[in-house]
Amino acid sequence: MEKLIRGIHEFQSTHFGSQRELFERLAGGQKPDALFITCSDSRIDPSLLTQTKPGELFILRNAGNIVPPYGAANGGEGATIEYAVRALGIRDIIICGHTHCGAMQGLLSPEALEELPAVRNWLTHADATQSIVRERYRDETGEDLLTDTVKENVLVQLENLRTHPSVAAALSQGKLNLHGWVYRFETGDVFAFEPEQKRFTVLSHPGATPPDAVATSKIPTI
Amino acid sequence: MEKLIRGIHEFQSTHFGSQRELFERLAGGQKPDALFITCSDSRIDPSLLTQTKPGELFILRNAGNIVPPYGAANGGEGATIEYAVRALGIRDIIICGHTHCGAMQGLLSPEALEELPAVRNWLTHADATQSIVRERYRDETGEDLLTDTVKENVLVQLENLRTHPSVAAALSQGKLNLHGWVYRFETGDVFAFEPEQKRFTVLSHPGATPPDAVATSKIPTI
Amino acid sequence: MEKLIRGIHEFQSTHFGSQRELFERLAGGQKPDALFITCSDSRIDPSLLTQTKPGELFILRNAGNIVPPYGAANGGEGATIEYAVRALGIRDIIICGHTHCGAMQGLLSPEALEELPAVRNWLTHADATQSIVRERYRDETGEDLLTDTVKENVLVQLENLRTHPSVAAALSQGKLNLHGWVYRFETGDVFAFEPEQKRFTVLSHPGATPPDAVATSKIPTI
Amino acid sequence: MEKLIRGIHEFQSTHFGSQRELFERLAGGQKPDALFITCSDSRIDPSLLTQTKPGELFILRNAGNIVPPYGAANGGEGATIEYAVRALGIRDIIICGHTHCGAMQGLLSPEALEELPAVRNWLTHADATQSIVRERYRDETGEDLLTDTVKENVLVQLENLRTHPSVAAALSQGKLNLHGWVYRFETGDVFAFEPEQKRFTVLSHPGATPPDAVATSKIPTI
Amino acid sequence: MEKLIRGIHEFQSTHFGSQRELFERLAGGQKPDALFITCSDSRIDPSLLTQTKPGELFILRNAGNIVPPYGAANGGEGATIEYAVRALGIRDIIICGHTHCGAMQGLLSPEALEELPAVRNWLTHADATQSIVRERYRDETGEDLLTDTVKENVLVQLENLRTHPSVAAALSQGKLNLHGWVYRFETGDVFAFEPEQKRFTVLSHPGATPPDAVATSKIPTI
Amino acid sequence: MEKLIRGIHEFQSTHFGSQRELFERLAGGQKPDALFITCSDSRIDPSLLTQTKPGELFILRNAGNIVPPYGAANGGEGATIEYAVRALGIRDIIICGHTHCGAMQGLLSPEALEELPAVRNWLTHADATQSIVRERYRDETGEDLLTDTVKENVLVQLENLRTHPSVAAALSQGKLNLHGWVYRFETGDVFAFEPEQKRFTVLSHPGATPPDAVATSKIPTI
Ligand SMILES: [Zn+2]
Ligand SMILES: [Zn+2]
Ligand SMILES: [Zn+2]
Ligand SMILES: [Zn+2]
Ligand SMILES: [Zn+2]
Ligand SMILES: [Zn+2]
Repeated sequence: MEKLIRGIHEFQSTHFGSQRELFERLAGGQKPDALFITCSDSRIDPSLLTQTKPGELFILRNAGNIVPPYGAANGGEGATIEYAVRALGIRDIIICGHTHCGAMQGLLSPEALEELPAVRNWLTHADATQSIVRERYRDETGEDLLTDTVKENVLVQLENLRTHPSVAAALSQGKLNLHGWVYRFETGDVFAFEPEQKRFTVLSHPGATPPDAVATSKIPTI
Repeated sequence: MEKLIRGIHEFQSTHFGSQRELFERLAGGQKPDALFITCSDSRIDPSLLTQTKPGELFILRNAGNIVPPYGAANGGEGATIEYAVRALGIRDIIICGHTHCGAMQGLLSPEALEELPAVRNWLTHADATQSIVRERYRDETGEDLLTDTVKENVLVQLENLRTHPSVAAALSQGKLNLHGWVYRFETGDVFAFEPEQKRFTVLSHPGATPPDAVATSKIPTI
Repeated sequence: MEKLIRGIHEFQSTHFGSQRELFERLAGGQKPDALFITCSDSRIDPSLLTQTKPGELFILRNAGNIVPPYGAANGGEGATIEYAVRALGIRDIIICGHTHCGAMQGLLSPEALEELPAVRNWLTHADATQSIVRERYRDETGEDLLTDTVKENVLVQLENLRTHPSVAAALSQGKLNLHGWVYRFETGDVFAFEPEQKRFTVLSHPGATPPDAVATSKIPTI
Repeated sequence: MEKLIRGIHEFQSTHFGSQRELFERLAGGQKPDALFITCSDSRIDPSLLTQTKPGELFILRNAGNIVPPYGAANGGEGATIEYAVRALGIRDIIICGHTHCGAMQGLLSPEALEELPAVRNWLTHADATQSIVRERYRDETGEDLLTDTVKENVLVQLENLRTHPSVAAALSQGKLNLHGWVYRFETGDVFAFEPEQKRFTVLSHPGATPPDAVATSKIPTI
Repeated sequence: MEKLIRGIHEFQSTHFGSQRELFERLAGGQKPDALFITCSDSRIDPSLLTQTKPGELFILRNAGNIVPPYGAANGGEGATIEYAVRALGIRDIIICGHTHCGAMQGLLSPEALEELPAVRNWLTHADATQSIVRERYRDETGEDLLTDTVKENVLVQLENLRTHPSVAAALSQGKLNLHGWVYRFETGDVFAFEPEQKRFTVLSHPGATPPDAVATSKIPTI
Repeated sequence: MEKLIRGIHEFQSTHFGSQRELFERLAGGQKPDALFITCSDSRIDPSLLTQTKPGELFILRNAGNIVPPYGAANGGEGATIEYAVRALGIRDIIICGHTHCGAMQGLLSPEALEELPAVRNWLTHADATQSIVRERYRDETGEDLLTDTVKENVLVQLENLRTHPSVAAALSQGKLNLHGWVYRFETGDVFAFEPEQKRFTVLSHPGATPPDAVATSKIPTI
């Protein structure tokens, strides 16, 4: 805790001043561009990754970046999504999974969750992920299997997201876009799901040259 | 979205390099110091506030930084807390509310939630906050009332947190500390609850001169 | 009841004989082709409509042909779907709404449900339908509005269906097809949703001449 | 699916014409005589069995013809029952089990449900059936045990049905009758529970000669 | 609290001695004859009423002596009943309502429950009572209506009790008897439901002269 | 049952007369001093223990004197507490565990609960008790372990109690006091938790000599 408190003092003495105006303006209200749903994992920093400033990203974080279907849970996920879509009018929702995710590892190794009953129960909202993985990736193991599980889970949670009335209505009106990402933090890469190609590809800058990197990637499936 | 993608490219080309070693090391596992529970509000950036780097804070975010009591919700909160305490062995949990919180504003104005049924339902986990506020702050209005609501809610959610078995057991063993904070983002101040004094005081650096600022603060009630 | 009992006796004395062999064979097990999900409405007879014999259709019926998302309800819907997909290996699921549906009428007139609390609660699984209809069909009333609600509800329930693990896994393996139908019982027509065209069209026999009927229909939107 | 679509075309071209008047009249509203609750099993066709026409039977179907007690489930059962009793004013409810029921077989062999978690969960609403069967039919096995389980389950579900407020109130007013049936589809027989005799007997036409068949039946217990 | 503590000291110094042997023997285990379910109302003392000693009555008390149907609530009622029937092997269950019951008064005046949301929610397990009362006692008011509500509620809760597997199985085996009582504490009378007569009658000692009191009672309906 | 009925007749003929005036007065309403929450165990008689008369104690009893956190259960506990605090304005709540508690024994021996699924489920509201006991009392067994479990459970249920809005608000206003007791019925002793000393001590009469008994007790930890 000392470290955190020192950090706050450093923030106050060194960084706050240059952003004072921004923070004071934000006291009047927030108008974020997007809702960013990601894992609680300490290695993920959405603001660092997207280089966004306070006021730009509405952020929902839990273990495994899971979005229970509408009505399936009375935790904070449904309320946070509804607030983002209806009260803030956000136009984009990103579900961002990540490599080496402990929650997804737990999904693959349920026997390791004996002492974690709340986690095991929470992961029932990723039962579809587990069912898909068991059928599609029987031959995989280790990190490959884990990364594909992360990937499939992002797609499953996008399906779950569609069942929320605020999302369904905004989608039906063309007022909202959904995005599925996987963040490979150890390389800094972000992969985005391309519905037409039905696969994840390296997120490229609009107008950039095609990412040759993908073709030579060791994990072409992501 | 273009802005976010440009941000990612900026992160990759400008910032990732200097942290590459850190990120690669983190691929081996996370060992965060604390669990930081805060609101999804876009104006709150826990890493900026505490000047922490990737790997240091496990972060749970939802609308209103609410922690339903154990068994009261099957959302991600209970699982994320259990994972932090039992699987990661974190030693400190901070619940950090903030000024101008839209969720707490909703608690004070339930009639504004007619179009937000999931939010209204979610706020039942802050019913105790509402009951306390109605009895103790009858004479307050506006921002004062909202800030006191934020403050009481942090305390209520700390009580809820204590009902989680992983938390109760670690507390009983002296292995865990709980902290209640309120972040006044427009001034950069953080107030921490002092159980002995039964009030929030400006968070001061260990060993620092006593914060005269508190006495002269415009918001002595916080 | 007398009428029903007379009917059973008529069935036994007049119809059972000719199907005895079929029924005796079916005692060895069922192997239906499809799961047919429709409303409890007395005016819908799935076997009559599809001219199927005992053993051919696995049938789930409730008020409003509603399929709560996975985990959102502990009624019979999820179990019946799971049994159909995993235990029976069915390859097609049809969700079939119908014109003049009382449940959908209730969704449009919640004030009429004051004496029907269980129905009102059940219809929360069609909240997305309601949200979509309120945004997209503001100008419609009466039967047009009701029919469009029926139509949108079929699509919403198809989304809900996708969240069920057994369905998600079978879809991911290409082993299952989903179909959205609306049955206009007063004309005998069935309309099927065409994902590519994003609209409902008259169900035509494979290889039949294009259904001119659609173009001249009074309800081209269906 | 081709078969189903051909069936629809056959219905439209061959059968609809003769019932057009009936269907058109039904567009004005339904007034069914009874609510028929039965299993989703493909071998059961309530309309064929009772020789009823469209508009005569309101039908609820799920795996195992189970009726969770009031408040014990938020699936479609409670709403469908409430709608039938309060909105349609039906006067008779039949719960109709059947021989060779896969759901009841699952109740007897829980170990077979490992891959069917939703079914297993659903069958908790037949826990009373299971408890009764374990105590009363210890010596039975095979088809006898299964048929007696089906029989006891019909009685258990009738008890569950009585807890629904709409049913309880209508019963208390003498406006509703409950019936427990078991359909032995392989012989075409229907057995009805006789509360006075506390046993199931072959359903006989009012005024018919006593069914000698019962005495010589191989399953006298049904 | 002083009064309670003085009472404990009086118990210890004056009464415990004469029952020491009984209490010491009971340390070896309890073997109560019956499960007594009654209201939390301070005016009801089951041991005083039945003149039973420690070890004789297993007692479940909540506001309104309500027994949610099996699966409808995860409070202590179901567990306490299961423990009584299966672990203790009790042979009789009494549900004992009482005159002037505040919970039943709340059922009749839902508008008075605005500040009591948990009570209102709890009373949904007496929805059947409310529905029956609304239909059967339209002309009654005041204390008569309240007493008839208490009476009907005892019957409704008996129905709910039957849905519990432990109860259903024991009933089916003839090992358990259910009793519905209403305690008129202001006169000391107890009324028991007589299933054959379908009404409550004054509880009479076996072999006693027929209770003329009933005929002349001011509340013949009880 | 005969015994109970004889007891009622004895009560009516021998005891009621002397308390008639009290009972008649109580028909006008109850005004109990405290809410007493204890186990359903037949060996516990709250009125005998505290020497209170009808009208003095509002009593909640279930297996294990468990109070699920607010929102974690929809059984009678939350409603009964809310009614006591808000409708009756009680000023003290006592949670009273007891030695030789079968529910706590079940918590220590979950394998013994296989035939008691409702009990096992109910005990999840004592998961925190179990977690604490597993960490703090690893070296204990038998009666010592059971008594310490009873003791810790009282403290856990007090934490759960604090999450109820009616309790939280009254505590925040200084209008309510919570008490944790353990009743050692075989000796007649009552131990009360002393928050300052963080341990249970023999409940002593205000102004009495310090209880030397504690120092020499065989169970100094209680
Ligand atoms: Zn993760
Ligand atoms: Zn906020
Ligand atoms: Zn319908
Ligand atoms: Zn079946
Ligand atoms: Zn009462
Ligand atoms: Zn006990």
